[in-house]
Amino acid sequence: MMIVEDSTSGAMAYASMNEGWGRALRFGAYDDDVISRLRWMEDTLAPALRSAINHVGGIDVNGLIGRALHMGDECHNRDIAASALLFKLLAPALATVVDEHQALTEVLAFLAQQEHFFLNVGMAACKASAVAASNIPFSTMVTAMARNGTDVGIMVSGMGDRWFTAPAHVAQGLYFPGFSEADASPDLGDSAITETAGIGAFAMATAPAIVGFVGGTAADARQYTEEMYGITLGENMNFTLPPLDFRGTPTGVDVRAVVESGIAPVVNTGIAHKEAGRGLVGAGVVRIPLEAFEGALRAIHGEWILGWPMVRFESGREYRAGSGDG
Amino acid sequence: MMIVEDSTSGAMAYASMNEGWGRALRFGAYDDDVISRLRWMEDTLAPALRSAINHVGGIDVNGLIGRALHMGDECHNRDIAASALLFKLLAPALATVVDEHQALTEVLAFLAQQEHFFLNVGMAACKASAVAASNIPFSTMVTAMARNGTDVGIMVSGMGDRWFTAPAHVAQGLYFPGFSEADASPDLGDSAITETAGIGAFAMATAPAIVGFVGGTAADARQYTEEMYGITLGENMNFTLPPLDFRGTPTGVDVRAVVESGIAPVVNTGIAHKEAGRGLVGAGVVRIPLEAFEGALRAIHGEWILGWPMVRFESGREYRAGSGDG
Repeated sequence: MMIVEDSTSGAMAYASMNEGWGRALRFGAYDDDVISRLRWMEDTLAPALRSAINHVGGIDVNGLIGRALHMGDECHNRDIAASALLFKLLAPALATVVDEHQALTEVLAFLAQQEHFFLNVGMAACKASAVAASNIPFSTMVTAMARNGTDVGIMVSGMGDRWFTAPAHVAQGLYFPGFSEADASPDLGDSAITETAGIGAFAMATAPAIVGFVGGTAADARQYTEEMYGITLGENMNFTLPPLDFRGTPTGVDVRAVVESGIAPVVNTGIAHKEAGRGLVGAGVVRIPLEAFEGALRAIHGEWILGWPMVRFESGREYRAGSGDG
Repeated sequence: MMIVEDSTSGAMAYASMNEGWGRALRFGAYDDDVISRLRWMEDTLAPALRSAINHVGGIDVNGLIGRALHMGDECHNRDIAASALLFKLLAPALATVVDEHQALTEVLAFLAQQEHFFLNVGMAACKASAVAASNIPFSTMVTAMARNGTDVGIMVSGMGDRWFTAPAHVAQGLYFPGFSEADASPDLGDSAITETAGIGAFAMATAPAIVGFVGGTAADARQYTEEMYGITLGENMNFTLPPLDFRGTPTGVDVRAVVESGIAPVVNTGIAHKEAGRGLVGAGVVRIPLEAFEGALRAIHGEWILGWPMVRFESGREYRAGSGDG
C-alpha cells in the first residue's frame, strides 16, 4: 500500500500499487498469474520501494504530476511520462538500497515496463487533496466521483459523508482486439478521483496522444478541457497546460454549475469486461450522470435554504443563506 | 563515442555523449570540473553503456524519437521524454551487466538527472538519415545545416560534398540569469541536423512546453511547424504529431522551395557565450540564412541547367533537365 499526505492539511490517502493493464486484480482478474505477480509485489517490490522512497526522503507527487502534464500525460489513462519521471527518481535510490542483484534487476525491469505505475500514486495524491477540501461549510464543490459498475456516486464538500448516486453510463471508446461494447461493464472504478482533482479528462488538452487509446481527435481532447472550465471553481496553477499557454487545469466541480449548465463532468477510463475475472477490454470517455448532481443540489436546497436555521445553529458561525461561493 | 546506423542503407553516424547543459566542453568550457566529468564518462559511463546496449541488442533510436514526439519533446532542445525512455530501456540492463555497485549507482544517477542525454543520440540518428539521403542525382533536398559561430553552411543531396555558406544570425530567445543578447555568440553548433531530419523546431507543434526555454507562445510553436510544411518535400509518418492529428513531421527541406517562398528553415538552439570557455548562456530560435539557399540554387542552376550535358554524362543515366522533384 502506498500512502500520500497533503502536507498543508495533513490529510492522508492510500492506494494499492498498479499491477499493469489487462488481466489484473484491479479489473476483476484473479488467475494464477495475477496472484503470483501480487505475491512478488508484496515480497520484493514493496520492501524495495519502501527503502528507496525513505532513501530519497519521500516523493513530491504533485510536482511529478505538474511535470508530466508538460509531457503529454493527463495522469489518468496516460501516465507514461509520470511513471518515467518516478522511475528516474527511484532507480538510483533502488540501486543504492537493494543489495540483492536479482531483486534489483527484477524491480527495475517491472517498473521500467509498467507505463501506468504512476496512476495509483497520482490517485492517492488526488484523494488527499479532495479530503483536504472536504467538509467546508456551504461549499458546493464535488470532493468525490466514484463508480462501481452499476451506479455512480458523488460527494459534496459541504454535505458531509453522504453519497448522491445515479445509474452508471457505458463509456464510448476503443476496444482491444476481439472485444466490443457488448462486452463492456457500465462505468467502473475509483480512478475518477483524478478528474475530481482537475486532471485526467479535465487536462486532456495537454495529452492529444491519448486519443489513440480512448478514441476521438486532438480537437476533442482540447474541447473536453475547455468545457470543464465552465463547471469548475478554480484553475490550479501548479498543474499548467502548455497548449493553453500554461493556463491552470480546471479544478473543483461545482454542483450548481453542473446543474445550471447541463454540462456533466467528463472522465476518461479503462473499460472492464462485464463478466468478473475477464479484466480490461478497452478504454474510452464517459460522463458522470447529471442525475447525481441534481440529487445533490436538491438535498443542498432542502437543508441549506429551507433548513437554514438548523444549519446556522449547528455550525455556530454566521453565514448568509443562499450566497455561498462553494 | 556513440554509433548509430541507418539499417536500410547501412549509413553510419557518430556522436559524443552529452555532458549536460551549462559548463560543458560542447559549449566551449574546459575547466577542471568539465575535464573530470569527461574522464568519468570515459572510464565508467562508456563501458557500462556499451555492455548494456549490447545486452539489449541495440536501441531503435527512431522508435524512441517517435514515442518522445508524443510526449512533448521535439528532440532538439527538449529531450526529457526521450532521455527518460532511453533510461527506462537501459536501467534494467545496466543493473544486469554492471557488477560494481558504486559504478552502477553513479551511472544510474548521472543518466537519471541528465535530461538532454538523448540529444546526441538523436543527432547521430538524424545524421545517419541525412547521409542515407545524400548524393541522390538532381535532388535539391538539404542534407546538412551546421553553424560554427560565424557562418552557417548547408549541403544539398545532389551537389556532393560542397558547403554553401552565409554569415550566422544571433538567436532570439531567453537568457539564463545574468546574461543577455550582448553575451551571445552568433548561431553555433551541429545540432541543427535535427531540423535537417524534420524534428527539433520543425516538430515544435508537439512541444508547446519548450517555449518556457526558448521563448514565444504555444501558438508560435505550432506556427513554426505549420510553416515548415511549405518548404519540405515529405511528411515522416514514423514521426507523427498528436496536436496536428498525427500528421507526419515536415521533412526534407527543398532548396527551391526555400528560395521561392522566402521562408527560411527555423532552428531552436542553445546559445553559447561569445567568449570561449563560458559555456551555454540561454536558448532561443534562429533562422538558417536565406543567402545559403540562394547560393546553393545559383550553383545548381549553373551546373544542372547550364551545365546539363556534363551532368548527364557523369551520371550515366537519363534525366530531364529542370524537372527534378528533389
